[in-house]
Amino acid sequence: MSSSRINDIQPFHVMALLARAKELETQGKNIVHMEVGEPDFPTPQPIIDAGIKAISKGNVHYTPATGLPALRQAIADHYQSRFNVSVSSKRIVITPGASGALMLALGTIINEGDEVMLADPGYPCNRNFIRFLSGKLCSVAVDASSAYQLTLEHLKQNWQANTKAVIVASPSNPTGTLLDKSELVKMSQFVKEQGAYLIVDEIYSELVYANDVSTALAIESYQENIIVINSFSKYYNMTGWRVGWVVAPDSTVDDMDKLAQNIFLAAPTPAQHAALAAFKPETITILESYKKEFHQRRDFLLPRLKDLGFKIEVEPQGAFYIYASCEKFTTDSYKFAYDLLENIGVAITPGIDFGENKANTFVRFAYTTSIERLEEGVKRLNNYL
Amino acid sequence: MSSSRINDIQPFHVMALLARAKELETQGKNIVHMEVGEPDFPTPQPIIDAGIKAISKGNVHYTPATGLPALRQAIADHYQSRFNVSVSSKRIVITPGASGALMLALGTIINEGDEVMLADPGYPCNRNFIRFLSGKLCSVAVDASSAYQLTLEHLKQNWQANTKAVIVASPSNPTGTLLDKSELVKMSQFVKEQGAYLIVDEIYSELVYANDVSTALAIESYQENIIVINSFSKYYNMTGWRVGWVVAPDSTVDDMDKLAQNIFLAAPTPAQHAALAAFKPETITILESYKKEFHQRRDFLLPRLKDLGFKIEVEPQGAFYIYASCEKFTTDSYKFAYDLLENIGVAITPGIDFGENKANTFVRFAYTTSIERLEEGVKRLNNYL
Repeated sequence: MSSSRINDIQPFHVMALLARAKELETQGKNIVHMEVGEPDFPTPQPIIDAGIKAISKGNVHYTPATGLPALRQAIADHYQSRFNVSVSSKRIVITPGASGALMLALGTIINEGDEVMLADPGYPCNRNFIRFLSGKLCSVAVDASSAYQLTLEHLKQNWQANTKAVIVASPSNPTGTLLDKSELVKMSQFVKEQGAYLIVDEIYSELVYANDVSTALAIESYQENIIVINSFSKYYNMTGWRVGWVVAPDSTVDDMDKLAQNIFLAAPTPAQHAALAAFKPETITILESYKKEFHQRRDFLLPRLKDLGFKIEVEPQGAFYIYASCEKFTTDSYKFAYDLLENIGVAITPGIDFGENKANTFVRFAYTTSIERLEEGVKRLNNYL
Repeated sequence: MSSSRINDIQPFHVMALLARAKELETQGKNIVHMEVGEPDFPTPQPIIDAGIKAISKGNVHYTPATGLPALRQAIADHYQSRFNVSVSSKRIVITPGASGALMLALGTIINEGDEVMLADPGYPCNRNFIRFLSGKLCSVAVDASSAYQLTLEHLKQNWQANTKAVIVASPSNPTGTLLDKSELVKMSQFVKEQGAYLIVDEIYSELVYANDVSTALAIESYQENIIVINSFSKYYNMTGWRVGWVVAPDSTVDDMDKLAQNIFLAAPTPAQHAALAAFKPETITILESYKKEFHQRRDFLLPRLKDLGFKIEVEPQGAFYIYASCEKFTTDSYKFAYDLLENIGVAITPGIDFGENKANTFVRFAYTTSIERLEEGVKRLNNYL
């Protein structure tokens, strides 16, 4: 008796693969985990300390639905100091992770049947939020020619009368590639002309290794049509705390407040207090050391995967993912991922979790484990392939 | 450019009233708060300690989407020891508060246009979840004759071909009244015959003062059609932590898992670890002392409100609310609530937040403040009315 809403939503195949990997581990097998989309570092100590202090003091009651005013202000201050961008704290709504931010953003702007455009491959939850809200998906197949990102041309070619929003992500999950900045401006302008919204997922925006860190909030002219999604999960290493944020156009903030009151009341209070320590200099020092480590891992893994015969046409610039063609080895990347797991204990994510566009010849490697473990994984792959 | 989905959702009027109350307080006015639906007690120390311990140990990564296995088991054990009811931990899904539980339950079972029946007056978010998911509301006006609860007769009279679910709550917010147990069984049977679901909100079920505590999970025959919603927020005093649960029919658990993976990933990890201490004997001792205090407050406030001229036709048996007719004083309870706030600094919630059924002649008193403050509120009301 499931709703058709539910039947339209795909499960994450990697979850079943992860469960199988854990089963093998309990049987004593040694598994190299390159499937997990979660940083392997601990939450920085200043954040831990702030969380503990808040709980000890009894700061565990509801906050306003839009979040702790001090945290909204801290994020606004961060945009100012980091990017020299002035954003009113009133436009910042704290959410239970980026998931809550996407739910607020899409719930506020789309009706049943409205179309939302996004790139394939892309983060699977984005598609499923649209299905959940009875919207229509416009999945655009992207390839190396645009660094797996949408372009103005894609928008023009695929635009429909009922297209209400476009979702982009920079860096992208699963490809780790960046949006071209001038293209982002052009898309913002186009979306504004259509009276629609550009939702920019900046969850991994601080994990860009060329120090080319930016935000769509810098595009001043089109802020009424840009919605930025962000989170303390990835760069700030606060996954399980569940706290993120949305930077919303002025005209949508009251709607998001109303929706937040109803659908989640507020983000968890201990996590919000903990996140207040995320922008402290001593925290940033720790986070930058983690980022350096991710950078080293990418520089280790990328050439070795190429040497093994994986085709990586666009060099990933950020996040902690490498999206690689495995067409040299297989035309069934789903079976390929299970073969690697069962035969050599290497866990990776099959392309099918990120869409339908050539998914059967792609896999995603996550470098969320130490260089020693990556080295072990590469050794096993080298012996096997 | 708001979605019509958003325009259909009502704001909580009490939020504006609360904001005004806080404004008056910053001006130095003394406000008696009887509008707040949040217990005024601290989270019990064993829960605080467990939360701190988990964070200190770095237990802050994602849990499975269905929650920490140990917490699912602890809840199952609680049903066994407290109610002598055997529930598999596999049927228990941990959620970010009861809000997450309602989102999972309704998201899993209803499609656009499906109808959901509920009582008016009732908890406002329930109506708004249905609107958010493009479902149809069937609001049934209830009165003192059924203790403000739905009955089998209501279901029969209002049933439509597309009715997919019924939501009931015991005790109810705002009325504090209970569902008749035999009526609950009859409704379960009827709903099963229709191939639909009965969603039972048991958020306040431990806050029943006659010691007549029960759960719909005891109705063995109809478990495939009953979905129980619960939370650590109210009885366990963990509001801002954001952790609740749903007990789902076996056949819906996989769908809820899939949906949880997509829409919120998992409930906050520190809160889940903290909640493991919620069933400890030393915690229960503290919680029962809070409950005793709520009981005393009800026994203090109820007769005094009646003496003042408020009509309370059904004695509230639980939660921390009294739903009272103010028809002796006004036919505009919204204006009445603001008058009391501005003139005597007494904050209460107007009926309009709970529906449309005679909402203009009802208000809700929450006894989430000390007897001394309730006494002060009663004194002010007595002088003013």
